[in-house]
Amino acid sequence: MSRPLGVAAIGYAFMGKAHSQAWRNVGAYFDVPAVEQRVLVGRGAGQVAEAAARYGWAESATDWREVIKREDVDIVDICAPGWLHAEIAIAALQAGKHVLVEKPLSNTLAESHAMVDAARSARERGVQSMVGFNYRRVPALAYARGLIADGRLGTVREVRAAYLQDWLADPEAPMSWRLRKETAGSGALGDIASHAIDQLQYLLGDTVTEVSGRLHTFVSRRPGPDGVEEVTVDDAAWATLSLAGGAIASVEASRVATGRKNSLRIEVYGTEGALAFDLERLNELEFLDATTPAAEQGFRRIVVTEPEHPYVGAWWPQGHVIGWEHTFTHQIRDFLLAIRDGSAPSPSFAEGLQVQRVLGAIEQSAAAKSAIIQV
Amino acid sequence: MSRPLGVAAIGYAFMGKAHSQAWRNVGAYFDVPAVEQRVLVGRGAGQVAEAAARYGWAESATDWREVIKREDVDIVDICAPGWLHAEIAIAALQAGKHVLVEKPLSNTLAESHAMVDAARSARERGVQSMVGFNYRRVPALAYARGLIADGRLGTVREVRAAYLQDWLADPEAPMSWRLRKETAGSGALGDIASHAIDQLQYLLGDTVTEVSGRLHTFVSRRPGPDGVEEVTVDDAAWATLSLAGGAIASVEASRVATGRKNSLRIEVYGTEGALAFDLERLNELEFLDATTPAAEQGFRRIVVTEPEHPYVGAWWPQGHVIGWEHTFTHQIRDFLLAIRDGSAPSPSFAEGLQVQRVLGAIEQSAAAKSAIIQV
Amino acid sequence: MSRPLGVAAIGYAFMGKAHSQAWRNVGAYFDVPAVEQRVLVGRGAGQVAEAAARYGWAESATDWREVIKREDVDIVDICAPGWLHAEIAIAALQAGKHVLVEKPLSNTLAESHAMVDAARSARERGVQSMVGFNYRRVPALAYARGLIADGRLGTVREVRAAYLQDWLADPEAPMSWRLRKETAGSGALGDIASHAIDQLQYLLGDTVTEVSGRLHTFVSRRPGPDGVEEVTVDDAAWATLSLAGGAIASVEASRVATGRKNSLRIEVYGTEGALAFDLERLNELEFLDATTPAAEQGFRRIVVTEPEHPYVGAWWPQGHVIGWEHTFTHQIRDFLLAIRDGSAPSPSFAEGLQVQRVLGAIEQSAAAKSAIIQV
Amino acid sequence: MSRPLGVAAIGYAFMGKAHSQAWRNVGAYFDVPAVEQRVLVGRGAGQVAEAAARYGWAESATDWREVIKREDVDIVDICAPGWLHAEIAIAALQAGKHVLVEKPLSNTLAESHAMVDAARSARERGVQSMVGFNYRRVPALAYARGLIADGRLGTVREVRAAYLQDWLADPEAPMSWRLRKETAGSGALGDIASHAIDQLQYLLGDTVTEVSGRLHTFVSRRPGPDGVEEVTVDDAAWATLSLAGGAIASVEASRVATGRKNSLRIEVYGTEGALAFDLERLNELEFLDATTPAAEQGFRRIVVTEPEHPYVGAWWPQGHVIGWEHTFTHQIRDFLLAIRDGSAPSPSFAEGLQVQRVLGAIEQSAAAKSAIIQV
Repeated sequence: MSRPLGVAAIGYAFMGKAHSQAWRNVGAYFDVPAVEQRVLVGRGAGQVAEAAARYGWAESATDWREVIKREDVDIVDICAPGWLHAEIAIAALQAGKHVLVEKPLSNTLAESHAMVDAARSARERGVQSMVGFNYRRVPALAYARGLIADGRLGTVREVRAAYLQDWLADPEAPMSWRLRKETAGSGALGDIASHAIDQLQYLLGDTVTEVSGRLHTFVSRRPGPDGVEEVTVDDAAWATLSLAGGAIASVEASRVATGRKNSLRIEVYGTEGALAFDLERLNELEFLDATTPAAEQGFRRIVVTEPEHPYVGAWWPQGHVIGWEHTFTHQIRDFLLAIRDGSAPSPSFAEGLQVQRVLGAIEQSAAAKSAIIQV
Repeated sequence: MSRPLGVAAIGYAFMGKAHSQAWRNVGAYFDVPAVEQRVLVGRGAGQVAEAAARYGWAESATDWREVIKREDVDIVDICAPGWLHAEIAIAALQAGKHVLVEKPLSNTLAESHAMVDAARSARERGVQSMVGFNYRRVPALAYARGLIADGRLGTVREVRAAYLQDWLADPEAPMSWRLRKETAGSGALGDIASHAIDQLQYLLGDTVTEVSGRLHTFVSRRPGPDGVEEVTVDDAAWATLSLAGGAIASVEASRVATGRKNSLRIEVYGTEGALAFDLERLNELEFLDATTPAAEQGFRRIVVTEPEHPYVGAWWPQGHVIGWEHTFTHQIRDFLLAIRDGSAPSPSFAEGLQVQRVLGAIEQSAAAKSAIIQV
Repeated sequence: MSRPLGVAAIGYAFMGKAHSQAWRNVGAYFDVPAVEQRVLVGRGAGQVAEAAARYGWAESATDWREVIKREDVDIVDICAPGWLHAEIAIAALQAGKHVLVEKPLSNTLAESHAMVDAARSARERGVQSMVGFNYRRVPALAYARGLIADGRLGTVREVRAAYLQDWLADPEAPMSWRLRKETAGSGALGDIASHAIDQLQYLLGDTVTEVSGRLHTFVSRRPGPDGVEEVTVDDAAWATLSLAGGAIASVEASRVATGRKNSLRIEVYGTEGALAFDLERLNELEFLDATTPAAEQGFRRIVVTEPEHPYVGAWWPQGHVIGWEHTFTHQIRDFLLAIRDGSAPSPSFAEGLQVQRVLGAIEQSAAAKSAIIQV
Repeated sequence: MSRPLGVAAIGYAFMGKAHSQAWRNVGAYFDVPAVEQRVLVGRGAGQVAEAAARYGWAESATDWREVIKREDVDIVDICAPGWLHAEIAIAALQAGKHVLVEKPLSNTLAESHAMVDAARSARERGVQSMVGFNYRRVPALAYARGLIADGRLGTVREVRAAYLQDWLADPEAPMSWRLRKETAGSGALGDIASHAIDQLQYLLGDTVTEVSGRLHTFVSRRPGPDGVEEVTVDDAAWATLSLAGGAIASVEASRVATGRKNSLRIEVYGTEGALAFDLERLNELEFLDATTPAAEQGFRRIVVTEPEHPYVGAWWPQGHVIGWEHTFTHQIRDFLLAIRDGSAPSPSFAEGLQVQRVLGAIEQSAAAKSAIIQV
């Protein structure tokens, strides 16, 4: 690795901004291969140039097809909307670039399958790929996974997960590409329930095998630039899931849960312990150890900022909390280490596909009066 | 009302103990008709005599059929297990006694229908009846209902309810009548999900119209007095419910949720506000008013002990919290006032039947691969 | 103990009501000597008769001097204001009656010394006495004391205590006997800081040896029945205390802490663990065990309702929370057991005097520019 | 402002790392004058070169005297230990460089006075200076200050502040320059109580006028590189403070508060409202509005991540929380805007001196048996 890895990012909106900060800062905290923010790609030349300057990219460009051919680009980071993921990712992998793609993997199962194939074949050529379920890199959740893997919860029986937001609670909140099925694929389901589902599979190291689901749109018409438009995705989603290992999980996602801003809450109940987490307090994990005497049991609020905890030793002393954006830095750290070491990055495209398949089964179940569907 | 109302209670176990304290204390705090604890009824003569002495009853008896004929008994309070409810309640109503019956109304829909008929006909003769969903008398929840009725939440869209306990988390916890279908009817579903379902209908002043449900028994065999026995009820239940007014509710109940002791949690999300409650902190209600400026919004922890709050003015000054048992005192207070005033007590047997019908529909759905069932 | 113990209570206001419920209910939950609520004493014949009927007393009376002579009275429970404590208690002890006196022991050190003498001499005759610091009987705090005594916190270094209320936050809140020095002795200091100070000595099993203090009256004039009156006691008090064992404690008390209803908060920091408690959540104790690995440490929220916890096994199953009033039932339970067994009740009058001495030292320090005063 | 402002930072340890990230990122989020990280200064050439590369500085250097003369350096950011502050800051100001200095302003009052003089005279020449009490830039606290300034709390009566850490709880934690009076000036007092004191003056827009204080060292000897050494600073500090406007504040600081990692907790009680904050949950502010009806009052947990809140609009959507380090970015943003606009940066050196004077008075009081000392 004689020269720094060149990075191109595609997309400069919300996710592009978040990923940019991670590329800009990862080297200040973690021992990773050197990287250079070579080029930021977007549709509007002026806007992307401005964003590139602001977010630390050496150049900007408007044609991703040109960019993925560049010799000085080693990594392509896809922050564009979901309907563009497959085309860009497959092309980039074929061009020999390592690819990080934001979740969801893509908007359709067919595309996702094609991406998995491309990733598998790329990996044979030493080209890496990964999908951006960044909440796997919340230290509290990474630590939680370790506790579960170490058997500290015994056998997990129940998971209770919800991802609640309220940015669509107001019926006057306007239309956007996120509210149209053709661009977004689905609503709360794909956008945020997907995080909850990936997370519970990640935490348990297990796989969802069947689902019963329901979708609902509370506000079916919203103001658009050209008048009132029909909302064609769900505002909220509910599902009950079976996992291969025997656990049962409930998942609820909503963008109209008034008062909840970004509340991914997960509770895990096992035979020997339990965990609880809320993304609005992402530095904390509640852990109950049921093997201690009953009189002493209680959910303990662990401030996950100790040097022993995943990732956080790189930042600040204990109790000096980190924020939401740090998860992206951790994600890129892990991706860079996998590139350096040739190890398999996770979540892989195949893992991203598995989440898509669960989401698809929920949609099918919702269309079939909630009857259980095999994944 | 020239003489005190005579009360007979049937059953002296957990619920009998709780109801006894309510009869013993209600007059010290509330302006209600005078009552006398005349007789406590149970199967074992010695044990019931001891319980009667301990819990403040003038006498004990073993034959409830004799007791409900007594002239000095005006009220029959049925704390016996569910399979006995119908027979006793119908007989007592026919004997002209006011009847308070613990939830569930009964173990079968047929019995419950008969009880509703008996109650209707008794009411025509001025004889009152009520079913004991005591959590309606948690001050925080009664106050919450008022906030919703006053429109403070706008239109309610989503309810998220769970009733989590862990007394069966240990696979070695022994068999009991609560774990056999023939005596208990169902498990977590009838025992605690019933509370959650009654509560959400109560809070919203609305009715569940259709359900999708699932039941699961994590520990299918438990040690009994005569060796290992099969558990024939559910350890945990999940359901998604539609309400007539358009809201959608999720309900989850478990007796194996390690670390949760008696956690009935309810969140209600409306267009203009939200509420959150946990029975383990029953003196508190969280309320978010979304009509205040966004920067000032937040779930406020109301300590529901002000004189303005329901029931609590009768007890202690603000901040001097009450406990779980007080809900029974409030229930009896309301029942006595309804008897005095001739007004309709609530929850009526018909309301109890409605909860049973929802539970029945959940069982049906669970047996039909979670497909939606009309209530 | 051939006949039930006869009880007389003096005072039927706030404390009289609270103690009455304890006498009425203690036998239903605890195995204690049988008691009978013989007579309730108060100044107004009509009001006390009504209160007696309401609170379960067989009779009422207006002259406590007569009552303490009655042969059928074995226990005198003094719920009258502090300025009456000494006279009644000493007379009752001399009459051979066991005496429970509400805190504060009395309003002056001289009176308190006389009471301690009377109690000592009575005890030689088998006559028992106790002062009512009821918060020693909060299960969470009794359990906390046990944890500290068992060394689970190692050496305690710091205690941080506050008792915050807000019933005087409103400058228009009216005058009462509690706001006049001649009747109340002091304000927040004697009324509530006293609880905090007793509690920290109780928790640590230690004694305050020196103090620096400050008192302040934020609202110095309040409306009385005959016009505006001067408030002659403190609204708030602050103190830093040294304990014999080397710990240092801060105590803060206020009746003008807007939004705090009855918040006695105590944090204890030791070399090997820490505790935190808030009376507004009296069923919970937070405990941090610093001997577990750093990554797993956290304040655990123990719901103090297990059978293994002090007192609570007598009430309801786990998670079925108790209220503020239960502390009085526990207090009477312990007093009755001490009477039965002849063991020394605690807190004794001498312990009550020790608290008074600390309060006196704080007043002295406050008058001396906060300079440290030996207790 | 034709070319970017050149920045030199002195010190590359904990604070240097934190300030570096702020310089590296401020322009990506805020519209501020362009800056360039020109040179990082430290004692060890190798280490500082490595740190410079890691933290985004163009160069490194070992002699701050040379650096502050450089024409391409416009701003000097002093992250060196306190005993070096005065010399560097005064020299830099005299050289015409804008100066940001970490708190405490310096270790002695004499030095601080000299720095204030230098800052005043520099400001006449358009050269800016500021001291780094970064917690003023916690969005929740900046928002709290606004609420107080807008009168939402009415008249503030009481402040209850504590800064609790536990990194010295272990008696085997080693000696360092922070534990020697000659290098650190004081212990918990100067290091963390200073933050609490600055913060309460900031929140109230008021000034401490007199104090009573106490200091204590629980662990008086600790292992050093050359054997056991005496600790010459305090482990913990307590003070009661009067403010000019009539409020009274308690402050407690400890580095041995087991289980508290970085818990700066502040409660403010006014006639019409109250606030509570904990740095371990820095995205949240609890606010109670006592002008709403009593039944609806409660501390509301505001997640301070709305666009309307100070600073946070620049980062992520609502509910996407920020971390501790962001306070430094905000601080530099405000410093750069003051440089651009010529407005007075705050906290000024004079404000830093005022904090030092309060700390000095606490030390004096502690040495005088806690007697009240005028500031």
